[in-house]
Amino acid sequence: MMLLVDVHDPGRDPHAAEFVDLQAQGVRVRRIGRHRIAMISDDRPDLVQQVRQGWPEARFVAVQSGSPLTERDTFGESTVVQVGDVLVGGREFVVMAGPCAVEGVAELRETAAAVAGAGAQVLRGGAFKPRTSPHAFQGSGGAGLSLLARTGREFGLPVVSEVVDPRDVERMAEDVDILQVGARNAQNFSLLAEVGRSGSPVLLKRGFGCTVEEWLGAAEYILAEGNPNVILCERGIRSFDSVTRFTLDLAVVPVLKQRCHLPVVVDPSHATGHRDLVAPMALAAAAAGADGLLVDAHTRATSTKCDGPQALCADKFGRLMASLRALLPTVNRTLPSRRLQVAG
Amino acid sequence: MMLLVDVHDPGRDPHAAEFVDLQAQGVRVRRIGRHRIAMISDDRPDLVQQVRQGWPEARFVAVQSGSPLTERDTFGESTVVQVGDVLVGGREFVVMAGPCAVEGVAELRETAAAVAGAGAQVLRGGAFKPRTSPHAFQGSGGAGLSLLARTGREFGLPVVSEVVDPRDVERMAEDVDILQVGARNAQNFSLLAEVGRSGSPVLLKRGFGCTVEEWLGAAEYILAEGNPNVILCERGIRSFDSVTRFTLDLAVVPVLKQRCHLPVVVDPSHATGHRDLVAPMALAAAAAGADGLLVDAHTRATSTKCDGPQALCADKFGRLMASLRALLPTVNRTLPSRRLQVAG
Amino acid sequence: MMLLVDVHDPGRDPHAAEFVDLQAQGVRVRRIGRHRIAMISDDRPDLVQQVRQGWPEARFVAVQSGSPLTERDTFGESTVVQVGDVLVGGREFVVMAGPCAVEGVAELRETAAAVAGAGAQVLRGGAFKPRTSPHAFQGSGGAGLSLLARTGREFGLPVVSEVVDPRDVERMAEDVDILQVGARNAQNFSLLAEVGRSGSPVLLKRGFGCTVEEWLGAAEYILAEGNPNVILCERGIRSFDSVTRFTLDLAVVPVLKQRCHLPVVVDPSHATGHRDLVAPMALAAAAAGADGLLVDAHTRATSTKCDGPQALCADKFGRLMASLRALLPTVNRTLPSRRLQVAG
Amino acid sequence: MMLLVDVHDPGRDPHAAEFVDLQAQGVRVRRIGRHRIAMISDDRPDLVQQVRQGWPEARFVAVQSGSPLTERDTFGESTVVQVGDVLVGGREFVVMAGPCAVEGVAELRETAAAVAGAGAQVLRGGAFKPRTSPHAFQGSGGAGLSLLARTGREFGLPVVSEVVDPRDVERMAEDVDILQVGARNAQNFSLLAEVGRSGSPVLLKRGFGCTVEEWLGAAEYILAEGNPNVILCERGIRSFDSVTRFTLDLAVVPVLKQRCHLPVVVDPSHATGHRDLVAPMALAAAAAGADGLLVDAHTRATSTKCDGPQALCADKFGRLMASLRALLPTVNRTLPSRRLQVAG
Repeated sequence: MMLLVDVHDPGRDPHAAEFVDLQAQGVRVRRIGRHRIAMISDDRPDLVQQVRQGWPEARFVAVQSGSPLTERDTFGESTVVQVGDVLVGGREFVVMAGPCAVEGVAELRETAAAVAGAGAQVLRGGAFKPRTSPHAFQGSGGAGLSLLARTGREFGLPVVSEVVDPRDVERMAEDVDILQVGARNAQNFSLLAEVGRSGSPVLLKRGFGCTVEEWLGAAEYILAEGNPNVILCERGIRSFDSVTRFTLDLAVVPVLKQRCHLPVVVDPSHATGHRDLVAPMALAAAAAGADGLLVDAHTRATSTKCDGPQALCADKFGRLMASLRALLPTVNRTLPSRRLQVAG
Repeated sequence: MMLLVDVHDPGRDPHAAEFVDLQAQGVRVRRIGRHRIAMISDDRPDLVQQVRQGWPEARFVAVQSGSPLTERDTFGESTVVQVGDVLVGGREFVVMAGPCAVEGVAELRETAAAVAGAGAQVLRGGAFKPRTSPHAFQGSGGAGLSLLARTGREFGLPVVSEVVDPRDVERMAEDVDILQVGARNAQNFSLLAEVGRSGSPVLLKRGFGCTVEEWLGAAEYILAEGNPNVILCERGIRSFDSVTRFTLDLAVVPVLKQRCHLPVVVDPSHATGHRDLVAPMALAAAAAGADGLLVDAHTRATSTKCDGPQALCADKFGRLMASLRALLPTVNRTLPSRRLQVAG
Repeated sequence: MMLLVDVHDPGRDPHAAEFVDLQAQGVRVRRIGRHRIAMISDDRPDLVQQVRQGWPEARFVAVQSGSPLTERDTFGESTVVQVGDVLVGGREFVVMAGPCAVEGVAELRETAAAVAGAGAQVLRGGAFKPRTSPHAFQGSGGAGLSLLARTGREFGLPVVSEVVDPRDVERMAEDVDILQVGARNAQNFSLLAEVGRSGSPVLLKRGFGCTVEEWLGAAEYILAEGNPNVILCERGIRSFDSVTRFTLDLAVVPVLKQRCHLPVVVDPSHATGHRDLVAPMALAAAAAGADGLLVDAHTRATSTKCDGPQALCADKFGRLMASLRALLPTVNRTLPSRRLQVAG
Repeated sequence: MMLLVDVHDPGRDPHAAEFVDLQAQGVRVRRIGRHRIAMISDDRPDLVQQVRQGWPEARFVAVQSGSPLTERDTFGESTVVQVGDVLVGGREFVVMAGPCAVEGVAELRETAAAVAGAGAQVLRGGAFKPRTSPHAFQGSGGAGLSLLARTGREFGLPVVSEVVDPRDVERMAEDVDILQVGARNAQNFSLLAEVGRSGSPVLLKRGFGCTVEEWLGAAEYILAEGNPNVILCERGIRSFDSVTRFTLDLAVVPVLKQRCHLPVVVDPSHATGHRDLVAPMALAAAAAGADGLLVDAHTRATSTKCDGPQALCADKFGRLMASLRALLPTVNRTLPSRRLQVAG
């Protein structure tokens, strides 16, 4: 049986001296959101006594699940993840769009201009691509990453890109505003701990064979390292029907909203694998209560090396944004007005 | 290799004398929608010759799938199923609501009044309930059916109820406006053929272990008997995660809309199994392009014998309808204004 | 809460006068195995009192699951289903083999001779074939059934064939020794009740989307009608990988052996859909503790109209039987010696 | 389109000077089995010309799948992986057994003595345990690893243990004879490449949400680094039924044996999650043609911190080995006689 101690105390730092002795005794001390500190430990009477004395106002919660730091019941309020000047999990709906894989300078600039112009707030682009076969295109690596970062700055868009190796986290966190952990690494606990230690915002995709409980367990690995900036991303699960590439499990959006305080976004592109299904499922995700989307968009959608069949061209992307702009207010959300296309 | 011959000819009757000779040679002659007749046969040169002479304007289509009569490509236009004065598959979104199982007179009238008052156009209610165990409540049977029919008439609502036995079809078609074929009978081909022969509107649920291809094959069994009045209903499939009762596969809504000419409705109640998830998934279904909903609603939701945890009370149902009324116009659909609550 | 009363009393008949009064009060009185009678009722004190007086030696069991009549814990001993002189569920392993669909006289006789010669004890053959599309070959119907029955008699083999419509049960029970309920009708409760009332041995396939709990619930529908002669047949479930047609869930063999008193056979042909996988999975089923097999075999395996890719030719079938003959004694089972090929 | 060039040439070394120029042009040169070298490249005429001149006897194979190095058709013969004096994939069936997690010295020695005495050839034991929650016991780490290695040497058993972080591979390869890649890391391509570079034997578990194609793609990542010593391990996949922990997909054993040249073992312990199901599924795996087993065994099975419910005690393990010893010769395999319990 474990115990979680909730201290609503914005002034203190989890690394402060007062916590050092507890940490030496095996208590994990973590910041949750902006105003709270959580201490997690075995339910030992001596520790409980010590904590009660040091923090008489603390709330003690018996831990029922394996992911107490993710639970809404534990903390009540919702977590809003700040990425540059974009807030994920607030009233504004956040669209992250861009090419599945970063390929060339001109293409990426074209796509960034198109998605920013249509109202996307974050630029996505893969540099390290986990592919089923080692002989398939593995992404453009570090060069792609630099290009992505530069293009994001140019258009005033924070960028999100996938990290696949714990040894890359530190370096990538310099170039990338949101570190994406992909479906295939959803239970790569070494990688999760490393992005946890980085403190950077993390977009955590659901593993395509993972239950909600396992997904929250994965998020807990990041939170347990003291990084509260986790965005969950539903991207489809494995099912018996191959009519779509994966089965987009939209009911998890309200399930997570009830159970967990973290923002939830949806990736309708990888889930369906068909360009024509992206807009309906994006609208459905918004209606179900998602906080945002991750969308494959590419101005040269038919000639890409990776996942071309599901990318939206500029025109279709623009129409999707217009539809979202109409629908979102009916579910008490808004889409921000268009951002300036070029910084400076 | 099979052949489908499409005759756009609203004047003729599939049972007319001119078709009799062809039918004797094994050609299936079926009405599709209001304006067309389809002939399906093996690709025999002698038959082709005979058909070309009799119907020089006919279009010949080589059949690629096992369900040619369901395919949008074959017929182009959408099928609108008329049920009393309600049109399913048109611009108006159709909500079918009511108790999972018909139990008592007062309860059913209360619920019917509530859902009609909130804008539902069809009253649902189960009389024959397929239950996992033979020792569980099996429904109120014929008595329940009569009660449902009477209550529907009273409130001016057509009714939908499940048929589970081919021997019941004829009798049930007298009381019930839409015959529902449930998930467990989704490939009960004897039952499908019998509801096909009845000519009544049929609401065909997807089997929880069935692919879209198998589902369309099931619809084809009904269409092949000359009954074009089929409404498809997604109600969740089996997946590995039990966080919801079934996994609502909303992406099939746009998939079916592209591939098939039949109307598609969604049942968010049985799919999720949790009252609090019904409204978000109902809105998501509407956003994804569904033609309507099948919703468990019950004014005494907490005391029902069957599926109580997922039924909406009058208050929650009313709020869902208000949300739909706001959202639907943003996807070019409408919800009709409230119907008169009591006929005559 | 329900109650099951177990009366170990081979002399009495569930239809005897002494039970009539109880049945009028809603108690279900059913024969289970050869030596027992079960009474199932709501846990009403007055009924309990009445039963205790009439059957002082009876054992009262509180019912926890929806399928108490299937549970091993309730009855202890294993059910052995007798089909002619073949016992299914005893120490002898029973192989049922034959063509997926009955097609022609000569072919069926050839196949029957081959499988009987190799040691099969039951002849299988489909006459009513449930097919995904109504335009696919639907089986040879009544004519096929008569042919199957005649061929079975000729070779001294009881026959098993699928029934798909409750209206066919009575007639089919005259020709067929084991009524098969297929995967698509695994929760067709009208059909299950009808085969229950027939009293004939029933081979109940698992629905490809059904849990073990649902499968046992389906068996309970048959048992609850007083027919204890149920053989369960695992034939593969739906999963995300299409490398085999279905995923053969062999672990249910020991699960069912622990939980349920009914015999369990395995169909490796439909599960895998590939001829070359049949023998390894047949051996695996035997090693896992199955009571027998249902195998597609066809002497003209490459020219069949239905499921040809998975049928074993005579030669491969003979080699499988030889392998089973070697393996079975190592798991305390035997394969009987070859039966006479032609009766009379 | 890719090309694979097969050189049957045991004398040459992939790192030899003659290959350097090709490698500089992007050709991957890899050892496969003991007697072959494979070169993989894009199908460029200039390269083809160059290779034909250098290796006139080479065989050119057009690559159809993403995992050509795993394909049996490409190489014909089976790969036998040598671990100490144990051969995995030969005629001898190999049982790897031990505790799920290494906990204490005395317990591990007891268990090692018991499994070695019963005929196990490899000692398994987890030191780094990937757990759904970060608050669950994470294994004994480096200390556990040293203990495992020491105990293995004492009892003359090579050891297998899971590696979860690419940064640990080099160090673990010193202590451990077989590096296990677990189900959660089945598509952790950084880890796969690292164990590939290590050259150590690798036991690659199937991801519980991975298709056979993806599993072979994962193996290809290891083979593509020049490490041919890969053992595939089926350990159950996700399905809709929770009657067992996972669904053991035994049909993949013959599927892999046909398609792939690598040895295949089965883990019936994690797949089923129930002690009583382990022996039947172990026997079924052997009957289906597996090359060996990975079994949880623990002399104090009821008091373990990790996966206790599925571990076999010494007695049950001994009985399983006796059953395997009887069954295996009927499928042309043998179990070696008992190994000496204590080295030296």
